Amino acid sequence: MGKLNLGQGSGGRLTSELIGKFKAQFDDVNVQRDLEDCTMISPEWAVTIDGFTVSPMDFPGGNIGKLAICGGTNDLAVRGIEPKFVTLSVIAEEGLDEEELLRYGRSAASVCHGLEVKLAAGDTKVVPKGTVDGLFLTVASMGQPLGKPLGMDHIKPGDRLAVTTSIGRHGATIGSIRFDLNVEGLSSDCAPLWPLVKPLAVLPGVRAMRDCTRGGLGTTLCEWAEGTGLGIEIDESSIPIDEEVSSVCDILGFDPLHLACEGCALIAYSPDDEDRIIEILRAHPSGIQATSIGTVVEGHPSMVGMRTKAGGMRVVDMPVGELLPRIC
Amino acid sequence: MGKLNLGQGSGGRLTSELIGKFKAQFDDVNVQRDLEDCTMISPEWAVTIDGFTVSPMDFPGGNIGKLAICGGTNDLAVRGIEPKFVTLSVIAEEGLDEEELLRYGRSAASVCHGLEVKLAAGDTKVVPKGTVDGLFLTVASMGQPLGKPLGMDHIKPGDRLAVTTSIGRHGATIGSIRFDLNVEGLSSDCAPLWPLVKPLAVLPGVRAMRDCTRGGLGTTLCEWAEGTGLGIEIDESSIPIDEEVSSVCDILGFDPLHLACEGCALIAYSPDDEDRIIEILRAHPSGIQATSIGTVVEGHPSMVGMRTKAGGMRVVDMPVGELLPRIC
Repeated sequence: MGKLNLGQGSGGRLTSELIGKFKAQFDDVNVQRDLEDCTMISPEWAVTIDGFTVSPMDFPGGNIGKLAICGGTNDLAVRGIEPKFVTLSVIAEEGLDEEELLRYGRSAASVCHGLEVKLAAGDTKVVPKGTVDGLFLTVASMGQPLGKPLGMDHIKPGDRLAVTTSIGRHGATIGSIRFDLNVEGLSSDCAPLWPLVKPLAVLPGVRAMRDCTRGGLGTTLCEWAEGTGLGIEIDESSIPIDEEVSSVCDILGFDPLHLACEGCALIAYSPDDEDRIIEILRAHPSGIQATSIGTVVEGHPSMVGMRTKAGGMRVVDMPVGELLPRIC
Repeated sequence: MGKLNLGQGSGGRLTSELIGKFKAQFDDVNVQRDLEDCTMISPEWAVTIDGFTVSPMDFPGGNIGKLAICGGTNDLAVRGIEPKFVTLSVIAEEGLDEEELLRYGRSAASVCHGLEVKLAAGDTKVVPKGTVDGLFLTVASMGQPLGKPLGMDHIKPGDRLAVTTSIGRHGATIGSIRFDLNVEGLSSDCAPLWPLVKPLAVLPGVRAMRDCTRGGLGTTLCEWAEGTGLGIEIDESSIPIDEEVSSVCDILGFDPLHLACEGCALIAYSPDDEDRIIEILRAHPSGIQATSIGTVVEGHPSMVGMRTKAGGMRVVDMPVGELLPRIC
């Protein structure tokens, strides 16, 4: 065992391994046995927690305050759990502009307001210059399930898969800033998912949803394939990718499947409900690009295959190293 | 409005002001209207959140992992709320020793085990070297009240005050390490309070409890005086202060009333129950130094006065600047 490396923060393969080792220390007190991002602590309440370290703290489409509430509540939303309360921990660097901190607070509050989510508790620490870069926020969220919580254990062979919007926009936006590219029209998809997916939370044909964050759509697909032991097949030509995101990928050599999203859910559902689900999603402003992208299969268990535009089949894996540290 | 300064992280006066301004951004979504450290989100459940940035991460009596679970659950315990679940967010620096991280995890898990508290969710991020110093942990805790939650609004004139152990040990321990003093026998009081205060949670004479963390006993007394509008009088000679803590204060010029505690509660209770409460506390290994230290009065509203050993009366205030950054 050595020193921590950035790849362990990517959300991909090395992150899974590190989390596995860390969770093993909690073996006898850990109730989060499944691979979902939130846990029911009673029949009425689910909780989740997420730390946010995004750099830069301001980016087209959002900022660290907005991102923290979106990301912190999206893990509940995709289980069909209505976010009700957030708690917010602030760790700020000495010398940070106070008005800037308050502005991120206002952005966070504004997302809460739109979701009718309440702030239940907070903590604020200021640490010496150089011991944190700017501002880290951590959000723990509590919510209540509308029906039976969704989860990957409901996924069956034959189920169809859809994404709620075009992929990779958050990752491409942060990447373009880091590498000093000026891409007109590019902005993060950072958004709360609950208003979009709420109607799906009680639709019997919906099996599971997951927000594609660190590691992107590709990582989420791999987690489902590995978690269910089923195969997944997707069609490259059907995946919505904005032109601006493609440009960033072309220039920087990123795979759009591995770029972070912050307002995009992957949904697994019964094929009988496809039309209705896509229709519901497209009726919401955050879901106008919703598209079915593939199918769950019995073949090639635990593996994700993508039919490429050229007609071949390519294995989709989690990223192994780190594409972009501090993406969220 | 300017740049954030370290005094705003002290837990004293400037921290209160910063938190007030930050909370104001959440005015229309904030349900934490009182000045307590945790909030009921339903009749059954309370939540709280706390970030931990302590430096050094290892110290006599504990480490950041133990501290995070103690501190994260103590805010519930002092309201008479039984801690049931914690969620843990890890933000670690690239290059941190992996075995060291896992060791802090084991310490955290061990406190959970002792409290019969379960880990419900986690998040792990690794950030580039230099963007965080070592490791920050954030813990959000959920618990269930045994009776009616305790709180400062129950405090009445004539109530007596006690501390559960000698004060300032955590602050003195961290301070002695920072300033390279080798004080034999000094160690942090870092401990979970629930096993100690559980019997008091259902005792009708108990009004309020608060763990004295950043800012120490003095700050907690001021918060109660200001929060209730009542006066508080304490006797310097009755406050338990270990010799090692006094030595550190003498050398470094600290006021023991302002030194952080991490396993010491201040308790307000009806004078009729004093003997019983002190007896209950002293029966527990963490409470053998429990002592009554003062009284709530109608005079000098919102002010704390201390009868000094010399026989005079001194005003106790919150610390204004920063004594020791990253104390917890």
